[in-house]
Amino acid sequence: MRATVINGPKDIRIEQVPDAALREPTDVVVRTVLACICGSDLWAYRGVSAREKGQRIGHEFLGVVESAGAEVRSVRPGDLVVAPFVWSDGVCEFCREGLQTSCPHGGFWGAPGSDGGQGEAVRVPYADGTLVRLPADAAGDERLLTALLALSDVMSTGHHAAVSAGVRPGATVAVVGDGAVGLCGVLAARRLGAERIIAMGRHRDRTDIARGFGATDVVAERGEAAVDAVRELPGGHGAHAVLEAVGTEDSMRTAIRIARDGGAVGFVGVPHGGSAGVDVGQMFSRNVRLGGGVAPARAYIPELMADVLAGRIDPSPVFDSSVELAGVPEGYRAMDERTALKVRVTF
Amino acid sequence: MRATVINGPKDIRIEQVPDAALREPTDVVVRTVLACICGSDLWAYRGVSAREKGQRIGHEFLGVVESAGAEVRSVRPGDLVVAPFVWSDGVCEFCREGLQTSCPHGGFWGAPGSDGGQGEAVRVPYADGTLVRLPADAAGDERLLTALLALSDVMSTGHHAAVSAGVRPGATVAVVGDGAVGLCGVLAARRLGAERIIAMGRHRDRTDIARGFGATDVVAERGEAAVDAVRELPGGHGAHAVLEAVGTEDSMRTAIRIARDGGAVGFVGVPHGGSAGVDVGQMFSRNVRLGGGVAPARAYIPELMADVLAGRIDPSPVFDSSVELAGVPEGYRAMDERTALKVRVTF
Repeated sequence: MRATVINGPKDIRIEQVPDAALREPTDVVVRTVLACICGSDLWAYRGVSAREKGQRIGHEFLGVVESAGAEVRSVRPGDLVVAPFVWSDGVCEFCREGLQTSCPHGGFWGAPGSDGGQGEAVRVPYADGTLVRLPADAAGDERLLTALLALSDVMSTGHHAAVSAGVRPGATVAVVGDGAVGLCGVLAARRLGAERIIAMGRHRDRTDIARGFGATDVVAERGEAAVDAVRELPGGHGAHAVLEAVGTEDSMRTAIRIARDGGAVGFVGVPHGGSAGVDVGQMFSRNVRLGGGVAPARAYIPELMADVLAGRIDPSPVFDSSVELAGVPEGYRAMDERTALKVRVTF
Repeated sequence: MRATVINGPKDIRIEQVPDAALREPTDVVVRTVLACICGSDLWAYRGVSAREKGQRIGHEFLGVVESAGAEVRSVRPGDLVVAPFVWSDGVCEFCREGLQTSCPHGGFWGAPGSDGGQGEAVRVPYADGTLVRLPADAAGDERLLTALLALSDVMSTGHHAAVSAGVRPGATVAVVGDGAVGLCGVLAARRLGAERIIAMGRHRDRTDIARGFGATDVVAERGEAAVDAVRELPGGHGAHAVLEAVGTEDSMRTAIRIARDGGAVGFVGVPHGGSAGVDVGQMFSRNVRLGGGVAPARAYIPELMADVLAGRIDPSPVFDSSVELAGVPEGYRAMDERTALKVRVTF
């Protein structure tokens, strides 16, 4: 089969690889229908996160079950399924608590020895613990499928930021980061009842999506000026909940600064700036909390899926570009140069 | 009147100062009955936290109202009262939410121009927002008064750590720090229903108090060995809630490491180590939350007082030493050298 491999920084290729195949009786093989490229894939693309030469890549996909091991109970060949960005056994203490990202048998798509999401098929370990079945009739609706694809990571991750920041009905929420996760954070905050949602960003195409997702205010400033701009908005004390969806030292510093006293920052940007942006003095004197991390998408997909299927939320606008598998290297280039927000991959 | 002043590092003196007096119609003057020395006073004593020469010091006291301004409604001369370690107006948005430490009219006892708690009397601004009235008959019970004195800071702060770490019935809790706040954190965790409470400390006199307060395990190791010891306890995944009551880089690092995936650190040790101990990579990959800060003691005193008066909690054992006002400088020395855990001051 053909799949995306990463051979080094900025060296993404489509190569012939061994066919995805069942190994354990709890596995299934999924034939990919839709996949996409994630902002976090860019850390590997840019060489910031190390990868072995020839490692697979991509961790967001949905598709059709092609074959299933003898012990698989929840899905069968022909089922349309979506995968969260990590697999998990579904039965351990952490999985039962809804923190599947801490499953001792869990792993990330594309880890050495595993298939990545940006390929024609994927061997899925612990299928019963990992996959979520989608309604069969979604297969014919491209916009709906695209929205459901977002549950794999960005929508679930934006939701995790909102949950971790304690977004509640009536809250003032600020979102740091205008990537797909930040935008999904806006949508998640609106879904959770936020009254005022401040999107921070300066790219009109992105802030337009943010407004469509429910942002009531857009702050284009950065750094100190951004902090002042948020604090000058009516209410004046900052945001009850701040969603940090970037992961740099600066973004973390800004997020903590714009939080209201007693408020919280939900951080989901993969940290690449060390802890220097985490101003514990500010957090201490103003009782600002910091929570979040890698999103347990598997825990969130069922409830978010229900809202997508019912038309209450539609994250599909974060996909502004689409390529076939052969176009994936170009998709990485486009996202790296920020000419694309998020690239969908069709098969 | 006589009061404690700090003239420089390790230079604590008892001096004659202007009598505490009403300035605003919302003030009262409290004649001090009991005060104490706080672990956080040692940061000033050691010169780590800057103080103006001649500044007052001490932020924990209870006493009897001596005079009251015309607008004071909640207390009257002769009332026995306890003060939280900051004053607050009681009417602003933050006070109404229970975050009195963020009151825009609030301040710390001993701030330039204000009386400190370690003196014969204290002018109390915003008395209605600040003070909590105690039952008159507590005055005759020295042990009870000593327990109530702890509400001023250490018991409320230990409780804040427990609340910030999300301690719940059945939880496994670890407490980093064997000072008075850490020990009160043990007591607070037990009060909130923790099933297993791990006290980290190596001084037998302190760990004995911890056991008396409800600690089920004592870990004497430090650093890496301490992390291993906590993780080797039954349950094995670390603590659901970690109470950080030290404030150094090392203590923060340890606190985050021993938290269970999905758990939380409640930090109340005044941060003196910068953010280097805040391992955001660990927090991210294991979904460990960090919250806490300066405790809104005023919000907690009523509920904690009810439990002290009913005999359900007794934090008085954290006071292992007592001096009269003239002995305060010696009390600082004893706490600095760790020959005293917490020094009570009688008047």
